[in-house]
Amino acid sequence: MKHAIFALLIAIHCGSAIAAEDPLSSWNEGQSKQAIESWVKGATQAGGKAFIPVDQRFVVFDNDGTLWPEAPLTFQLQFVLDEIKRLAPEKTEWKQDALVQAVINDDMKTVMLAGKKGLIKLMTLTHSGMTTDDYAQRVSHWVETHRHARFGCRYDQLGYQPMRQLLDYLRANGFKTWIISGGGIDFMRVLAEKMYGIPPEQVVGSFSLSEFSLTDNGTQLRKTLNGAFYDDEAMKPVAIHLFMGRRPVGAFGNSDGDVPMLQYTSANPAYKTFGLLVHHTDGAREYAYDAHPSASGKLVNGLKLAPKNGWAVVDMKQDWKTVFDPAQCASEQGK
Amino acid sequence: MKHAIFALLIAIHCGSAIAAEDPLSSWNEGQSKQAIESWVKGATQAGGKAFIPVDQRFVVFDNDGTLWPEAPLTFQLQFVLDEIKRLAPEKTEWKQDALVQAVINDDMKTVMLAGKKGLIKLMTLTHSGMTTDDYAQRVSHWVETHRHARFGCRYDQLGYQPMRQLLDYLRANGFKTWIISGGGIDFMRVLAEKMYGIPPEQVVGSFSLSEFSLTDNGTQLRKTLNGAFYDDEAMKPVAIHLFMGRRPVGAFGNSDGDVPMLQYTSANPAYKTFGLLVHHTDGAREYAYDAHPSASGKLVNGLKLAPKNGWAVVDMKQDWKTVFDPAQCASEQGK
Repeated sequence: MKHAIFALLIAIHCGSAIAAEDPLSSWNEGQSKQAIESWVKGATQAGGKAFIPVDQRFVVFDNDGTLWPEAPLTFQLQFVLDEIKRLAPEKTEWKQDALVQAVINDDMKTVMLAGKKGLIKLMTLTHSGMTTDDYAQRVSHWVETHRHARFGCRYDQLGYQPMRQLLDYLRANGFKTWIISGGGIDFMRVLAEKMYGIPPEQVVGSFSLSEFSLTDNGTQLRKTLNGAFYDDEAMKPVAIHLFMGRRPVGAFGNSDGDVPMLQYTSANPAYKTFGLLVHHTDGAREYAYDAHPSASGKLVNGLKLAPKNGWAVVDMKQDWKTVFDPAQCASEQGK
Repeated sequence: MKHAIFALLIAIHCGSAIAAEDPLSSWNEGQSKQAIESWVKGATQAGGKAFIPVDQRFVVFDNDGTLWPEAPLTFQLQFVLDEIKRLAPEKTEWKQDALVQAVINDDMKTVMLAGKKGLIKLMTLTHSGMTTDDYAQRVSHWVETHRHARFGCRYDQLGYQPMRQLLDYLRANGFKTWIISGGGIDFMRVLAEKMYGIPPEQVVGSFSLSEFSLTDNGTQLRKTLNGAFYDDEAMKPVAIHLFMGRRPVGAFGNSDGDVPMLQYTSANPAYKTFGLLVHHTDGAREYAYDAHPSASGKLVNGLKLAPKNGWAVVDMKQDWKTVFDPAQCASEQGK
């Protein structure tokens, strides 16, 4: 009894969870869930062959399509379009701009035809010039005032419940959870702590360099697009090395852009690693795509490489009991 | 009694220290020590005006001249020179190279005259082309096989004892300690955990982008000088935002290159912050310089700005009882 009280006090004080129920309750029983649990049990079993010391338990997650939806557009691209609309009334110089007008008129065909050059222009208009603090407030304000067109929920209620449980489960077992995403680092950091329990310093994404200057009453960092680093494909391992400074033992993604990150992780010479790809197979509750995504998330090569690398492939339709947390976003249910 | 046992168990389990003696025992009593203790007490006193929530207790430290010596050359520049000498016998193409020959012949005048262009060349020869793993082994090997010319100790025994105690003291009070240094990120990460208890992911420095590729039996990251980011002056706040994602509450440096980092910290609108500059005043035990350092560490503007910003200025000679830990490096004693 005394031991139990001690354990309880220690657990409460140290923030570890005492599981009253299945920590992966939103996962259906099956290969994916078993593979996760088996790896975590091995990694935490002292003396076992698959044991990983706590200070080496670093795992990396992609974000778009892995932790939150990326269809029909990524959240950040939707933010870009909504910001253009919000800002347009004060910007008389935008009245003659064909691309901006296409955004305002929801003429997505013209927007898409503008390609990478058009995207950079829209990023310049919405992701540079303001201070980093101002930008964070803009993202917060957007989240407060917009709903996802299909699901009808706030964007910060659309983290996949099974993946949020997985993050919690891993942390409860001593893992440090990091995001390594193609999404903008400043964009995700506004949302990741509340949605996923991942603090800013463990959120890595595409970035560019801000500009520091003194102001009358302090200092400021102004966003620019200088020194842009696009954190996708082969740059993901580069970003992991740069920010995390060590090789992960687990990697979780959903697209070919995540493959180098999974390969880098699987090639960890010291430990039994884990790789996982979320396969979007559920058009009824979310979206179904692989070779032909609507905006981002092409998955072809990853599916080919998964078997020989031992990566788990999550069949969203089969493996996930729920997609979103019904307490946060109920609109998916029954669709 | 029961409470005491509980507290003890919790403290042991959670890794917090039970101070048996003064945690800043290598600091002499005086303004600097008082200022540190007063700020930490305020920051940790719940309900007080100077209280800082634990999840906001992020502090940043410069490294060269703040945590370890930077004279007569920075450790990393000494490593560069020693590496050139180590590699030269296998590199026949270096025989005709005047700069390399100057390094081999300890002709520092010629090396210095080669300026920035020369430095980039030497960096290219010693900091690119190899894998990141190989580079880390080279740094480790250098530390194993070299001693500091003046102090006669291994380089990893030359962390300033008062600053190492300060890092421990801050961590024991819930602060997360980060390095934000002009030194190379891959160089420092080999040493920082052992010397300072700072893990790789909390060590930020100058960096360039590695290159990822698949190999026959795995993956590799090869060091390059592409996308070089020099983490000094106004780039320090930029790096803090990029890596840490929040404004620090404390900043510790020793040169004008640290001033923007201290300004950025002091302008934190939410909390009572702390700034500190180490002034190298001790030619007998270490080095004495400010306006005219031997290699790096110019301190003029910082001394001017300290009073109005409320930054503590450490007088190394007066404020530090010891410079290095006598158990690690005794050669300074009595000099």
